[in-house]
Amino acid sequence: MPRSTVLSSRPAESDVPQTSRAGSLADVDTVVAELVACFAESAPMRDLLGGTPKLQRDQLRASGLLGLTIPVELGGLGGSWSLALDVVRRFARVDSSVAHLFAFHHLMLATARLFGHAGQWQPWFRQTARLDWFWGNALNPLDRRTLCRRHEGWNEFSGRKSFCSGALDSEMLIVSGYTEDEGRLVVAAVPTARSGIAVLHDWDNIGQRQTDSGSVDFERVRVDDAELLRDPGPLTTPRSCLRPLVAQLILTNIYVGIAEGAYEEARRYTLREARPWHAAGFEHADDDPYVLGHFGEFFIGLESLRLLADRAGAHLDRALERGVELSVEERGALALDIACAKVAATRTGLDICNRLFEATGARSTHAALGLDRHWRNLRTHTLHDPVQYKVRELGEWALKGRLPAPSFYS
Amino acid sequence: MPRSTVLSSRPAESDVPQTSRAGSLADVDTVVAELVACFAESAPMRDLLGGTPKLQRDQLRASGLLGLTIPVELGGLGGSWSLALDVVRRFARVDSSVAHLFAFHHLMLATARLFGHAGQWQPWFRQTARLDWFWGNALNPLDRRTLCRRHEGWNEFSGRKSFCSGALDSEMLIVSGYTEDEGRLVVAAVPTARSGIAVLHDWDNIGQRQTDSGSVDFERVRVDDAELLRDPGPLTTPRSCLRPLVAQLILTNIYVGIAEGAYEEARRYTLREARPWHAAGFEHADDDPYVLGHFGEFFIGLESLRLLADRAGAHLDRALERGVELSVEERGALALDIACAKVAATRTGLDICNRLFEATGARSTHAALGLDRHWRNLRTHTLHDPVQYKVRELGEWALKGRLPAPSFYS
Amino acid sequence: MPRSTVLSSRPAESDVPQTSRAGSLADVDTVVAELVACFAESAPMRDLLGGTPKLQRDQLRASGLLGLTIPVELGGLGGSWSLALDVVRRFARVDSSVAHLFAFHHLMLATARLFGHAGQWQPWFRQTARLDWFWGNALNPLDRRTLCRRHEGWNEFSGRKSFCSGALDSEMLIVSGYTEDEGRLVVAAVPTARSGIAVLHDWDNIGQRQTDSGSVDFERVRVDDAELLRDPGPLTTPRSCLRPLVAQLILTNIYVGIAEGAYEEARRYTLREARPWHAAGFEHADDDPYVLGHFGEFFIGLESLRLLADRAGAHLDRALERGVELSVEERGALALDIACAKVAATRTGLDICNRLFEATGARSTHAALGLDRHWRNLRTHTLHDPVQYKVRELGEWALKGRLPAPSFYS
Amino acid sequence: MPRSTVLSSRPAESDVPQTSRAGSLADVDTVVAELVACFAESAPMRDLLGGTPKLQRDQLRASGLLGLTIPVELGGLGGSWSLALDVVRRFARVDSSVAHLFAFHHLMLATARLFGHAGQWQPWFRQTARLDWFWGNALNPLDRRTLCRRHEGWNEFSGRKSFCSGALDSEMLIVSGYTEDEGRLVVAAVPTARSGIAVLHDWDNIGQRQTDSGSVDFERVRVDDAELLRDPGPLTTPRSCLRPLVAQLILTNIYVGIAEGAYEEARRYTLREARPWHAAGFEHADDDPYVLGHFGEFFIGLESLRLLADRAGAHLDRALERGVELSVEERGALALDIACAKVAATRTGLDICNRLFEATGARSTHAALGLDRHWRNLRTHTLHDPVQYKVRELGEWALKGRLPAPSFYS
Repeated sequence: MPRSTVLSSRPAESDVPQTSRAGSLADVDTVVAELVACFAESAPMRDLLGGTPKLQRDQLRASGLLGLTIPVELGGLGGSWSLALDVVRRFARVDSSVAHLFAFHHLMLATARLFGHAGQWQPWFRQTARLDWFWGNALNPLDRRTLCRRHEGWNEFSGRKSFCSGALDSEMLIVSGYTEDEGRLVVAAVPTARSGIAVLHDWDNIGQRQTDSGSVDFERVRVDDAELLRDPGPLTTPRSCLRPLVAQLILTNIYVGIAEGAYEEARRYTLREARPWHAAGFEHADDDPYVLGHFGEFFIGLESLRLLADRAGAHLDRALERGVELSVEERGALALDIACAKVAATRTGLDICNRLFEATGARSTHAALGLDRHWRNLRTHTLHDPVQYKVRELGEWALKGRLPAPSFYS
Repeated sequence: MPRSTVLSSRPAESDVPQTSRAGSLADVDTVVAELVACFAESAPMRDLLGGTPKLQRDQLRASGLLGLTIPVELGGLGGSWSLALDVVRRFARVDSSVAHLFAFHHLMLATARLFGHAGQWQPWFRQTARLDWFWGNALNPLDRRTLCRRHEGWNEFSGRKSFCSGALDSEMLIVSGYTEDEGRLVVAAVPTARSGIAVLHDWDNIGQRQTDSGSVDFERVRVDDAELLRDPGPLTTPRSCLRPLVAQLILTNIYVGIAEGAYEEARRYTLREARPWHAAGFEHADDDPYVLGHFGEFFIGLESLRLLADRAGAHLDRALERGVELSVEERGALALDIACAKVAATRTGLDICNRLFEATGARSTHAALGLDRHWRNLRTHTLHDPVQYKVRELGEWALKGRLPAPSFYS
Repeated sequence: MPRSTVLSSRPAESDVPQTSRAGSLADVDTVVAELVACFAESAPMRDLLGGTPKLQRDQLRASGLLGLTIPVELGGLGGSWSLALDVVRRFARVDSSVAHLFAFHHLMLATARLFGHAGQWQPWFRQTARLDWFWGNALNPLDRRTLCRRHEGWNEFSGRKSFCSGALDSEMLIVSGYTEDEGRLVVAAVPTARSGIAVLHDWDNIGQRQTDSGSVDFERVRVDDAELLRDPGPLTTPRSCLRPLVAQLILTNIYVGIAEGAYEEARRYTLREARPWHAAGFEHADDDPYVLGHFGEFFIGLESLRLLADRAGAHLDRALERGVELSVEERGALALDIACAKVAATRTGLDICNRLFEATGARSTHAALGLDRHWRNLRTHTLHDPVQYKVRELGEWALKGRLPAPSFYS
Repeated sequence: MPRSTVLSSRPAESDVPQTSRAGSLADVDTVVAELVACFAESAPMRDLLGGTPKLQRDQLRASGLLGLTIPVELGGLGGSWSLALDVVRRFARVDSSVAHLFAFHHLMLATARLFGHAGQWQPWFRQTARLDWFWGNALNPLDRRTLCRRHEGWNEFSGRKSFCSGALDSEMLIVSGYTEDEGRLVVAAVPTARSGIAVLHDWDNIGQRQTDSGSVDFERVRVDDAELLRDPGPLTTPRSCLRPLVAQLILTNIYVGIAEGAYEEARRYTLREARPWHAAGFEHADDDPYVLGHFGEFFIGLESLRLLADRAGAHLDRALERGVELSVEERGALALDIACAKVAATRTGLDICNRLFEATGARSTHAALGLDRHWRNLRTHTLHDPVQYKVRELGEWALKGRLPAPSFYS
């Protein structure tokens, strides 16, 4: 496809601006700021290219931020999830694909931790922090094509899996399959380089174009029992059921970040470039009552999103701290907070990404500005699971006091 | 008018349920709950009647809550403004007129405190706490008909003023006028019984029907200089400019309360009374996907409103604590938070009050239920100042970083 | 209830302005204009009163317009249904209750004609035209409480029926019941004065307050077989299935009329009374960009409604002209046109009735103006059957090409 | 830019399907259908490429449709403008860029006819019909950079002009400039090949990517007085003022066509490819109540747009037939009809293009489907002139009865 073939226009490695490495939480803010500045510059061009943002992934590796949610005692930075989500949102303001990859890396770590036992995730975390491993996703419970044949002490995974964000250029994968006999979901952590695993370059979508959310092929891949995450296993305990909530809150923060980024670009363009409508009688576009009306409404929407998303982030931290004590009701209350934030971010975000052009005007459609990528990114990502069913879940609570039933999407 | 003439249907005084008196902050929650239960029962009927809710005003007097924002050392309960706003919201869920009167009483106290000096407001506060005085509003800077003629040591107020919420059955009034010579706004606190003051029974509007927001006539009313609030005076310092923000945040909390009350009534009716549409194939209306969709959306909206309004309330407490140190920028930041909450409450609230009927159905339009009063109350009250200009103010900030210019509405 | 008790304030009969009688179609426009002027004056007051608009019903009787859809050869004016709907819309602009009663009278005539045979409806039509009979509704297929016991040559109706618009002060009723044995719907035309029929004064709802849409009690009411409409009977042939479409299109035109009336009142108030917001810097409210924006949007909405409703009206005329030749597909195509218009009128109308106040401002909430009645009337009437299921029906067509299945609501 | 460089993937000329030539109006429907089928197949790919749709332009030349609005006596097909707009809408359903080029060609012909005298446009029309000339646009009154220096009998145009849709690969141009001395707008028709004219390949925007709406450079271009359109000249008479209305109605029909095309693609995808949400409990996505709700709403919206646009098209035909008799009021009434249709098409169209994805789901974001191009095309094109000022114009009429003042945008 034309968008992805022009790889020769990539800057040479030597051109890459050097960014710092975070040695502790105190460095995170600065390192993120440096990375944001880097990512921003090339984001519109890379949106056209699609494919893997190899350079940006390597910058993330070099930044130490892949260890952000890893405990200090295992070599990581020991950041909370609310901090990680804040970093995701900051990345998403300028590059929602890279934000996605970064966030899913940490989601995979959380998956190992919430589904597996300490004897499993602690060594993996240690390695990840020491070697700057990048984790990718091959867990997709809606795609039932990957089967798992049980052997004595090991398992054989075969079949294809779609929507595997960040699998390409990763060191580790979280994979899922259904057992051939009982059709039970099994989840494992395996090295991406394992024999039989092929990550396909087949992601070419209208948005989130550098998330490599394509397919992975498993051809008789050996997975040892020790690699299976079955203690406590997927969606078994309230705490284990936090995993999909982490995922949903990641999506939410990416949506919020996209909306904030779109707003910020629109604001700058309006101030610097937009021309007042000749019949309006104003000297500057930023005096136009309708333009001011748009920005006022965008701001109110964003303020609501920030409050909803921040509340959910703090709530997640508290739920994680509860450990195995976490109750069904506590997990349910968190699910509601996250669902509210996600639906609001979907709707408010799409409105901003679509309507901003009514402030910036015809000339802002120039392709080099890439102002449409915000809508394309958000439109693509907000289809992860249908917003109307999230609204319906909230309706079940609002009307009847029923908490969302835990699933990989709730 | 028919709505207001059937006064004979009022319960006799002896029927009035006895409610408790709050002796300290610890009692407030219980006392409010008792009052809410009382107000709720008669609210739909009183909405039809209009006029003064004399009984409810007296219950408020007896409750001790008129001293809620008065410092303990002056005989009050020493509650914060965020607590007072929470009480306003709870009242508004069942009776937004009484909530309005209660809130404006405290707004008048705040006016005395923010515009006057301690030698003025401390005695008034003490009397109010001791005698359960109710304060009413006769400050309306947009109505320039009341003129103030200056004499040596005293002043003469003459003219009419509209939209004087709660002036009827009050012990004290905050009044405003424009000086005859310079057209400068002067504000004073005077006893309602002062000779020359006539409070008219001319409020008969489509909503907020028991707020007595009618006219007050001043005929050569003597106002001593000691009653004028001119140290620091109206809108003179950043702290003095908090007064309109308190007013705006009161409105916001009334809107939020109305929306919450409407939602709650709709929820109960849907669960208990609503019938599923015959063609839908559900046994209960609360299984209908569209009904669930409405409630899910209402809930998301309300959650946003609560976060926005609560943030603004906490922000107001902090700003008041800053005292005379409060800067222009700090005051401006608070104004933005309040404006966001107010616009969101206007729009989300109107949507809920209008759309709830699509869940409850045709039979819920029975007049005895009075489900329309929520829309009428909110529609009336949200016209206090035009929402579009509040949006515009936020746009000025969002686009250009301009803080709202302090005025009686911003 | 207070709204309905103040009957003494009714004008004496002698005060009633004399209006003309339409002798032919050529007179209709003038007669309607006279009635509209009469109805308009007292509509806000009568909205508060509720109850039967006896005077207005008698004016309609005297106007000859109760024969509007009766063929000339039977003594009527021979007007088309599209003309009748236009008259309904004109009445609804000023008084949607009277419009409703007028429209339902003609709907009852259409019911007799579409469900019965010429030997039945021709004499009824002749009597109606000659004696200015008013027909009322007691057909409500969702209310299964009225049972019909079959006897040899006659039937006995017993039980209650709700939502019987216009039954009070009518000469004839269309009634429905379910047969005791088979639960089959039977429909009949009977004189309202028939022994055993009691029309209750129990309609007191938030809108459409003078439609008398209360209950009718049947106590062993004798209905002769000759009064049953069973040739062809209800919803038996495509032509017979036009009856609910006539009903749906009547509702649509009432909604459009309400919206037009609300717009017109708002327009006049804005031009004559509304004050510009003091901070806006305009001398007249009608120069405010946001006010102009509201009216521009209202106008676009109304233009769409008029086109949709007029198209459906012309389509209905053509379908009626097809007589018994009308096919299932032709009937279905008409149903789609009417459904589009009805949904659009519901949504656009509610938006106008709610939002107009943002143009007219706080002072326009004065009860004497009664500007809220438009929202209350429309909100009440648009719940007749749930809008979301009408949208869904259109979705079935849009997505899968399925025509709406005929029912009393589709 | 990557999107436009992969020209080698273009099909060879020999692959081009042969389409027929319309010899008379009777052939138009078939020829359009053939072209639509051709354009549809390559539209998503050409959207990525951008640049000139040379093949499609040549197919239009070969089709005879460039003479659609040329009178039969001058060698054209003699079609009405409402027919031409219908063809524009049909093209826009599959390829809104080609529709744009085709429509602007006819707009340029209309410009010559409405601004010039018969001695000018008749020979040009004859040549156009005989030689299949394509006309392009270089008239942009908001871009004041092109200046016109008057000489005796001729003029010299110099300067750049932006947004020149279809100038590339055209035989004739309508150009505008401002006289150096008086700053008066002059408009002329000149051959594109005229010395000094350079059409730039600088259009690379997010939508309408194959409209070549880039810049044209004029370097001392000679324009004879006989080529100036000054009898009656631009916007001089009510009839001359029809030109911008033709332009606005072209835009409207392109918007409607885009919305219809987006809907149709979404419908097909939903029926054939979309999967029901696993938690919804339906076997097919097309049974989902929320999906049906979306399509029902899309359908209602499209039906409104079709009625509004068709009414305006028929109105334009009537206005053109009035010739020089056309009054200011008649022209104004047409302007209102067109403005209504344009605003509605903007808003409804954007809603459909954005929301369709909530029916089609995550997998429909695959780039090869190109479903995002509808939003990008519509979003770009609807910024031609600000929708809010069109709403305001309608508000001036709705509130105050003021007709839109003729301009190049009203």
